[in-house]
Amino acid sequence: MTVYYHDILYDGSNTANATAAIVAQPTLLSRSASINDTYFGEIVVFDDPVTVGPALASEQVARAQGFCFYDKKDAYDAWFAFTLVFNSTAHKGTLNLMGADLMTEKTRDISVVGGTGDFFMARGVATLWTDTLEGLYYFRLRMDIELYECYDV
Amino acid sequence: MTVYYHDILYDGSNTANATAAIVAQPTLLSRSASINDTYFGEIVVFDDPVTVGPALASEQVARAQGFCFYDKKDAYDAWFAFTLVFNSTAHKGTLNLMGADLMTEKTRDISVVGGTGDFFMARGVATLWTDTLEGLYYFRLRMDIELYECYDV
Amino acid sequence: MTVYYHDILYDGSNTANATAAIVAQPTLLSRSASINDTYFGEIVVFDDPVTVGPALASEQVARAQGFCFYDKKDAYDAWFAFTLVFNSTAHKGTLNLMGADLMTEKTRDISVVGGTGDFFMARGVATLWTDTLEGLYYFRLRMDIELYECYDV
Repeated sequence: MTVYYHDILYDGSNTANATAAIVAQPTLLSRSASINDTYFGEIVVFDDPVTVGPALASEQVARAQGFCFYDKKDAYDAWFAFTLVFNSTAHKGTLNLMGADLMTEKTRDISVVGGTGDFFMARGVATLWTDTLEGLYYFRLRMDIELYECYDV
Repeated sequence: MTVYYHDILYDGSNTANATAAIVAQPTLLSRSASINDTYFGEIVVFDDPVTVGPALASEQVARAQGFCFYDKKDAYDAWFAFTLVFNSTAHKGTLNLMGADLMTEKTRDISVVGGTGDFFMARGVATLWTDTLEGLYYFRLRMDIELYECYDV
Repeated sequence: MTVYYHDILYDGSNTANATAAIVAQPTLLSRSASINDTYFGEIVVFDDPVTVGPALASEQVARAQGFCFYDKKDAYDAWFAFTLVFNSTAHKGTLNLMGADLMTEKTRDISVVGGTGDFFMARGVATLWTDTLEGLYYFRLRMDIELYECYDV
């Protein structure tokens, strides 16, 4: 399953469109790098739309509800934990994911650690691509999700 | 296994009884809805008692140690990750859970993603009911926990 | 697999060496105990080195990227979720872990809930020992990681 994850960060004025907001500010360690700011310690909570195509206006299949934070002193890296909440005609249920988002890698894998509803007991791996990065307030990830059953009812 | 989860939030004066406290305040996105405040971004850390019956005074079987946050701009939704720490004559060990608490649904499922001790390698699903909600500072969830083995030693 | 996890907390002046920083301060509940401060509610984000031997200078096999918080009112307890990012000649890939760090126990177990790369679909248990605790700003954990397959490709 390939889906697209859209993160629209609150910038102080985009209340109507924003789907994510900063809940803890970066620490002083975020200023130690030669690059300006690595956001080390910044926590973001999100309720992001997940769509079938790369366009934000394409069909929405899920919401990604969860949080992430930046955790590298001298580069950009993040860590994510979230739930994909599916509520479409095709799928009802949830997938729970967590893992390191090694942002400087072209692709990186996180774990699908559980599922409910149509995804009862699912496990697997989700591969992330940074598809688009527009300044500080919008990014889009492509996610390829491969599920493997480890339990037969 | 059916258990009851009690959350007693610190209100500034209930130090002796409180089992949870707010560690990050809601963001401005929490004020965007027609409802007064959705707490978007508020993070709570807890060490909540888990009992066999709905009464807080009934036998305690575990502590729920973990955190949650509110993550919906225009409604109430939360996301949980926690460990059930069992330390009774019946059970010693832990269960690790995570998932979206879709508070407006009558029941919702989160994942049991791992276990230790008596619950070595357990996986499963926990179904949550909001059993009682008393203002801002107390709620009780009923949790039905179904475990499935996916590993035989 | 036995590895050693080193946490060097930012103290305001150790920018070059620090690998972790406080992102949310303790709540007032952390002052309720007979002991001075249990840090209840304090959140720490880390990118900690993980080595083959107890010495910080021994071969680094992974980084532990994630977060933890203190969650006990009247004692020391913490809760961890993190990714071991392996990038050595021996191993490339990640392990995702979460669970309660019951600090007052001599050993305690947390769950390995997923893996990627060389650790594709891994699950297991990691046993933690507090190996060294030097004041507020350095601790070292020994981690014994046992992996069990629950999926054959």
